[in-house]
Amino acid sequence: MIYIFSQSGEHSAIVTLNRSRKMREILGVALDLACDGGLDNLTLHRLAGRMKRSVAAVYRYFPSREAVISELQRLIATHINLIANDAQARVATWASKQDDLNPGDRALAAILARTLAYGIYAEATPDELGMVTRYLSTPDKMLPERDATHVFEIVSDSLDDLTAAIAHAQTHKMLTPADPHDRAVMLWAALQGSIDVLRVVQRGGRSPHTNLTRHMIETLMVGWGADHATLTHLTKTIIDHDLARVERTTRDLLSDEDPLTDTDHENTARTGTEEKTP
Amino acid sequence: MIYIFSQSGEHSAIVTLNRSRKMREILGVALDLACDGGLDNLTLHRLAGRMKRSVAAVYRYFPSREAVISELQRLIATHINLIANDAQARVATWASKQDDLNPGDRALAAILARTLAYGIYAEATPDELGMVTRYLSTPDKMLPERDATHVFEIVSDSLDDLTAAIAHAQTHKMLTPADPHDRAVMLWAALQGSIDVLRVVQRGGRSPHTNLTRHMIETLMVGWGADHATLTHLTKTIIDHDLARVERTTRDLLSDEDPLTDTDHENTARTGTEEKTP
Repeated sequence: MIYIFSQSGEHSAIVTLNRSRKMREILGVALDLACDGGLDNLTLHRLAGRMKRSVAAVYRYFPSREAVISELQRLIATHINLIANDAQARVATWASKQDDLNPGDRALAAILARTLAYGIYAEATPDELGMVTRYLSTPDKMLPERDATHVFEIVSDSLDDLTAAIAHAQTHKMLTPADPHDRAVMLWAALQGSIDVLRVVQRGGRSPHTNLTRHMIETLMVGWGADHATLTHLTKTIIDHDLARVERTTRDLLSDEDPLTDTDHENTARTGTEEKTP
Repeated sequence: MIYIFSQSGEHSAIVTLNRSRKMREILGVALDLACDGGLDNLTLHRLAGRMKRSVAAVYRYFPSREAVISELQRLIATHINLIANDAQARVATWASKQDDLNPGDRALAAILARTLAYGIYAEATPDELGMVTRYLSTPDKMLPERDATHVFEIVSDSLDDLTAAIAHAQTHKMLTPADPHDRAVMLWAALQGSIDVLRVVQRGGRSPHTNLTRHMIETLMVGWGADHATLTHLTKTIIDHDLARVERTTRDLLSDEDPLTDTDHENTARTGTEEKTP
C-alpha cells in the first residue's frame, strides 16, 4: 500500500509522484528524529541537517514544522487503523474455520482483534503512539483548536471501524443495545487510559496485572452484556495463536513497495535515505 | 487543614512555620502561573517577578523550577484525594439515613462517590488536573525515572483509598472476587482515559454522550458483577443530590485557615499575596 498525502493535489501526475516520493523521504527522517528524541527533537533545521539538505528544500514540501508533525500523526493513525484491520481479517479467517464458533462469537472476536492489536502496538511502539495521543492530556488552553480537530479527524477511521464491529455484535445480541459509537469512544478511552497508566504504575514500583489492557477490554464488554467465559476463551485463543500480531511498520507506508509482497521494505527505505549522505 | 511540605524538616519550629508560610505563598503564585499558561509559563524568573522578589529569594525555598512543579503536583494530588474523601463521607452520611439501602449498596455508593467526584473535579478544573496527569502520555524516554516514580507516589494515597472501597464492596459480595488494587488501577485508568478523550472528541465536532465518565464507571462495575439497576439508581441519587460536589479548592490547602470554618480563605490568601506588591 502506498500512503496518500492529504495535500498532494493541483499537480500533474508525474510531479505529484515525485513530490509524494520526496515527502515520504522527509517523513521517514522526521519519524526517526521524533522516535529518537520526541517531537521536541523534531525541528526543520535538524530534519534538513539529517537529510544533508537546506531548510529551504524542506519548506518546498512542507510549509512548517507543524505541517510535518501533522502529517506524521496522520501517517501513524493510518498505520494503527491498518494493523487493526489486519488483526480483524486474520481473526475472521481463523474464526471461519472453527466449527464451534457461531456468528455472534465471531462478532465479539472482531472487537477483541481490533482492540488487542491496538494494545500490542502500543506496548511495542510507545514512542510512535505517543505522537498521536500526546494531545489527549494537553490542557485545552495549550491545544490550538486546529490540533484538537486534527486529532479527532485522524482517529476517526479507526473509531468508525470499531463502531461497525460493535454494532455487528449488538445485532447478533452478544451485547445489549446501545449507541455503538458511544461504546467505541468508551473502549478507545479506556484502552488509552490503561496504556498510559500501566506505563507509569509499572515504573512507580508496583506491579499491577500486566494484562491491564486485556482485562480492561474484557471488563467493559462484560459490562455491555457479553458472556465472560466466551470472551476469556476468545481472547486466550487470539493471544495464543498470535492473531492480533503487528506485521507491518509505520515505515512500510512510506515505501513505494507493497509491504505484503516485499519483506525487505524497511531496509530498502532506510538505504534510500542513507544514499544521500556523502 | 494545613498542607504539610515534604521537605520541611531540620529547622526549629518557628523557622519551619515561617518557611512553610513562604513556601505556600510561592506555591500559590506558581499555581496561578501554571493555570494561566500551563507549566511552560511557570519559570522561576516569572515566579519571582510576579512576587516582586529576586530569583535568589525563591531559590532559598525551592532548589529548582522542577522542585516547585513537583510540590505543586503533590499539592494537587493531595487536594484530589481530599475531595474524594469528602464525597465518600457525604455519601456515607446520606446513605446511613436511607432505610432502603443495605450495607452492600452503601459499599458500592462509596466507590461511585470517589470516582464521580474525580470526574466532576476534572471537568471543572482541567488545568489543575492536567498538571498531575500530563506525564501519563509522555513517552518513557522523555520522562526522567524520578518523575515517573513521583507521579505514582502522589496518586498512591488516592489509589489506596479507592482500593479499600472496592475491597469493601467485594466483602459484601456486591462485586465478584478479584485483586482490589488491580481494579482500582483499572478504574483510575479508565476514568483518566475518558476525561482526556472526551475533551478531544467534543472539540472534534462529534457529540458523544457527555456522561462518558459516569457510564465508564458504571460499565466497569457491571463488568465486575455489580447490579446495573442498583448502580444506575445510586449514581442518579448521588448526582441529583449533588453529593459528589467539590467544596474546596487546591488553594485552600495553602491557607493557614481551616477551609471548612473560614469561607473567606481564598480572598485572605490572595490579599496576603497582593500586600507584597508596592
